[in-house]
Amino acid sequence: MKNHVRALVFDVFGTVVDWRSGVARDAATFLQRTGHTQVDPYALADAWRAQYQPSMEQIRSGVRPFTRLDVLHRENLLHILPGLGVDPATVAEEELNHLNRAWHRLDPWPDVVAGLTRLKSRFIIATLSNGNIALMINMAKHGGLPWDAILGAEVAQAYKPAPAAYLRTAEVLDLPPDQVCLVAAHNGDLAAARENGLKTAFVARPVERGSEQKIDLVAEQDWDVIASDFVDLADRLDCD
Amino acid sequence: MKNHVRALVFDVFGTVVDWRSGVARDAATFLQRTGHTQVDPYALADAWRAQYQPSMEQIRSGVRPFTRLDVLHRENLLHILPGLGVDPATVAEEELNHLNRAWHRLDPWPDVVAGLTRLKSRFIIATLSNGNIALMINMAKHGGLPWDAILGAEVAQAYKPAPAAYLRTAEVLDLPPDQVCLVAAHNGDLAAARENGLKTAFVARPVERGSEQKIDLVAEQDWDVIASDFVDLADRLDCD
Repeated sequence: MKNHVRALVFDVFGTVVDWRSGVARDAATFLQRTGHTQVDPYALADAWRAQYQPSMEQIRSGVRPFTRLDVLHRENLLHILPGLGVDPATVAEEELNHLNRAWHRLDPWPDVVAGLTRLKSRFIIATLSNGNIALMINMAKHGGLPWDAILGAEVAQAYKPAPAAYLRTAEVLDLPPDQVCLVAAHNGDLAAARENGLKTAFVARPVERGSEQKIDLVAEQDWDVIASDFVDLADRLDCD
Repeated sequence: MKNHVRALVFDVFGTVVDWRSGVARDAATFLQRTGHTQVDPYALADAWRAQYQPSMEQIRSGVRPFTRLDVLHRENLLHILPGLGVDPATVAEEELNHLNRAWHRLDPWPDVVAGLTRLKSRFIIATLSNGNIALMINMAKHGGLPWDAILGAEVAQAYKPAPAAYLRTAEVLDLPPDQVCLVAAHNGDLAAARENGLKTAFVARPVERGSEQKIDLVAEQDWDVIASDFVDLADRLDCD
């Protein structure tokens, strides 16, 4: 597989960046500034992320036209705050906007920049995230992620795991799907990629959802590559 | 302007890379391998480029759905070869395909990598080219161009100078048009960008069309910045 694949495309939230710690960090500041220190910032992060799949499902099912993730995140934030005891109407717009962009400021896992830099010497490396283009660009500037290109949902106009998200990404790379490999920490994402003909690489992120994480601790299929982190992935793919 | 602009978006063919020398170089190899050494490789490059605007005009006018530039280039190549005395039917498909990808292998002007590297420290830097995504990625890998993102016609699904090419690029960057500055060596491209609310930077490329070049030798409007090359542009925009 490593001699055949030309491009590695990456899931980002959870696989490349630690969304839970990053969102909780900015949520803690938000809760302090708005006088809600009784709220657990990790509870805010988890509640917000719990709305992620349902909000995209409206678009995948065709009920709603394609809408970028920044907009869905903003709606989801307004949706979850009352349940945490925060009335959004009492919070300044700029505080909400700043918190919404916490997703633009997520930090990469410690192995990511070193691993990506090595992988880039041999492969095209690009995002295949449900995050929108501006979000991915700002995150890359923040964390020093050396992508060759920002691809994914907004370019494909389809949210994973819809087939078009994978197939249109291969198409704009002008590669057959089996010359593109998805790198992800999520078995479900890899299963959809494989169903659409892409190669697959699993990288475990066992604390993505905190120390009590129950899912995606191990590879659930015989993915083409199984690596412990991005540096291990670069080793397994013979990158200098 | 330099304190307000967040993203610099670049015209590529002519502004970033020397398309004429690069296409002629690969055309010379092609002509030798196919036994047509009597043909001037620069004549091939110029004839090929002369079909560039007409082929996109079909799409801009709505006669034809959006079609990526690699496909238009391939059609244009078949269109111009007979006029140069080359019968495409006598040439192997793989020779034609390899020549068609000469546009993926164009070299940057000598100041480009140093200038872009400095500009990247202060601004988002992205392509706003009519070239397709795969072409731009391969060119960046070939020339070491440190783009933050590959944007442009294929992402916007519109060819410059159509307004949507500029406006959708600002939209995916999540920036108002006046926080985006087009960098180009072509007064016409800058005029369209300005009409759509973008800022403008002119960089002269006086031998893009060879030593007899007649057009785009000087700035024809009071563009927001006028620079002699990308290093001078970085100086003028106060980049370290």
